[in-house]
Amino acid sequence: MADRISRVLALMRDRGLSQLIVSDPRSIWYLTGVDVEPYERLLALLLRADGRHTLFLNRLYNVPETPWEEVWFSDTDDSIGLIAGRVDAGAPLGIDKEWKAGFLIPLLERCPGLRPVLASDCVDDCRAVKDAEEIALMREASRINDEVNRLASEYIREGMTEKQVADFIDRGFLELGCSGPSFTTIVSFGANAADPHHEPDDTVLKQGDCVLLDMGCVWHRYCSDMTRTFFCGEPSAEAARVHDLVREANERAERLVRPGVRFCDIDAAARDYIAAAGYGEAFNHRLGHFIGQTDHEKGDVSSANTAVARPGMIFSIEPGIYLPGKFGVRVEDLVLVTEDGCEVLNREDHRWRTVG
Amino acid sequence: MADRISRVLALMRDRGLSQLIVSDPRSIWYLTGVDVEPYERLLALLLRADGRHTLFLNRLYNVPETPWEEVWFSDTDDSIGLIAGRVDAGAPLGIDKEWKAGFLIPLLERCPGLRPVLASDCVDDCRAVKDAEEIALMREASRINDEVNRLASEYIREGMTEKQVADFIDRGFLELGCSGPSFTTIVSFGANAADPHHEPDDTVLKQGDCVLLDMGCVWHRYCSDMTRTFFCGEPSAEAARVHDLVREANERAERLVRPGVRFCDIDAAARDYIAAAGYGEAFNHRLGHFIGQTDHEKGDVSSANTAVARPGMIFSIEPGIYLPGKFGVRVEDLVLVTEDGCEVLNREDHRWRTVG
Repeated sequence: MADRISRVLALMRDRGLSQLIVSDPRSIWYLTGVDVEPYERLLALLLRADGRHTLFLNRLYNVPETPWEEVWFSDTDDSIGLIAGRVDAGAPLGIDKEWKAGFLIPLLERCPGLRPVLASDCVDDCRAVKDAEEIALMREASRINDEVNRLASEYIREGMTEKQVADFIDRGFLELGCSGPSFTTIVSFGANAADPHHEPDDTVLKQGDCVLLDMGCVWHRYCSDMTRTFFCGEPSAEAARVHDLVREANERAERLVRPGVRFCDIDAAARDYIAAAGYGEAFNHRLGHFIGQTDHEKGDVSSANTAVARPGMIFSIEPGIYLPGKFGVRVEDLVLVTEDGCEVLNREDHRWRTVG
Repeated sequence: MADRISRVLALMRDRGLSQLIVSDPRSIWYLTGVDVEPYERLLALLLRADGRHTLFLNRLYNVPETPWEEVWFSDTDDSIGLIAGRVDAGAPLGIDKEWKAGFLIPLLERCPGLRPVLASDCVDDCRAVKDAEEIALMREASRINDEVNRLASEYIREGMTEKQVADFIDRGFLELGCSGPSFTTIVSFGANAADPHHEPDDTVLKQGDCVLLDMGCVWHRYCSDMTRTFFCGEPSAEAARVHDLVREANERAERLVRPGVRFCDIDAAARDYIAAAGYGEAFNHRLGHFIGQTDHEKGDVSSANTAVARPGMIFSIEPGIYLPGKFGVRVEDLVLVTEDGCEVLNREDHRWRTVG
């Protein structure tokens, strides 16, 4: 953890920042081991270039002793005043992108002239590169995800509802020892799959429908995320062709992943292929996102991201084609950038097959 | 919904605000019916005193047509620029307490001189007073919570782990048609219960332990939340006495709830009683919190809140006594303020009994 803080301080130095408020509970755990979910309450870590870091903690939380200053407060105390008394109002103050206006605005009012600078990248860019322990946990989370995906594909029957299948998946995660799904499990039948973020409802599976499962679990704090699209009975010729397109787009992108490749180029590998087949408009989201302690972390695989892949990064590759009123197809894996290429963390077959 | 927006505009007028950015997805649903969970993406509703409201929406989301201006953007668009182009930089801008610094700081940089004002109270104070439909859903959520609490108390056996009991509760919610728990279910045995926010682990239940269950479910978007504390076998004399104290503190507070009573006085009714018995230090949190679409909403029952209860408000009453290394006791109900008193939404007995 000391090593992680050193890496963050180095990034702060590069940006000319002497102080940074970290508020994302996952970043605080990552840097200090303090594991608190504050919900609407204040939780903050003030990192300072001189090494005098301070944790601001509600007395509600039981936290093991840390090597840093701990400032404790109660629900009725002026917690923002405690922070205001410790920041240097004459220097720019780095702020976590996750910090809520409910805390930031009162702090700015208490420290007139203080210049807030969005600076959680200093932490997020560290979190984006996983260490060996994190990689082992994420490999296992994806292995379990593969297993539950396969079990779900065998369980699905014509006449079932989306909710039934989603419940089966969620229970499967618990039975295999996960703390739960890493996001609301998506099960979409037929035209529902044309909405990339459809939530499972009472729609009943019928012959000819596509079956899109987008799912992930949490294993010892770390997440997985995958999508497979099946068909109930034989798909239409168009649906089968679209699935082949999406699969090939996924594989073209995955083949490109290695250290030094720009994320926009990985995105383009899939996007250009889909666009050339005439479905460019129907692929309406970025190719992928980073993942770790939460399903979506800072960093994406999109046309706007000109940064390059580095060993230890883990992100999704998830092209899709969505045809409103008809169907949708997405094929998604997590990939780990290795020293000389990439390891695809999901092993389930990409090809379409029939279920039910 | 038009009525809800009118109530918000009236509160904005009272505060001299002509514009307000609403970002809490639950507030946006409450005011517009637009149901989107944006995670890290931007979602905002700009309310304006002149009635020209604007929704800022990512193209990813399928949203039914609304009567307001809709500004659509893609992941790679400059979404903050779209907002900057529509706010009046010469007037104070109300900001949702939930809005993240990742959006607020770039907006402030784009609109030099713009004065942000924390103003989500204009929406939250409306949300705090439930209408008839909301009350019916929350009554049902608490009825289900009571039922699963009772089933769990019958299920618990010596030798079980906290996680086993928590899984039973979570499955119970799903089986009764809920979308899930409204927060991470708390099951605490023995000394673990001295941490009010303990998360279930592999601790095994043994004779003499207290068994604290703090649980809630989500029924058609609306939450319940209750706590009961049991004992595995006969409690020590001290534990039984502490339970009686906490129960009596709960009931004294609940008897006080009616329109016009200050929240600080409700808090004091429980706190003074516990303090008089010598356990003041061991009751280390506010007496209660508001609840609705999320388990904790704006508004609390604490010594710092001098506002008064109004018909339609729903909040928790949850005194506790926590003795580190020994045990903890909490007794929690949800209460609804009626025209002339209060309806306790939880019906399960407050008194301690033995389980296992």
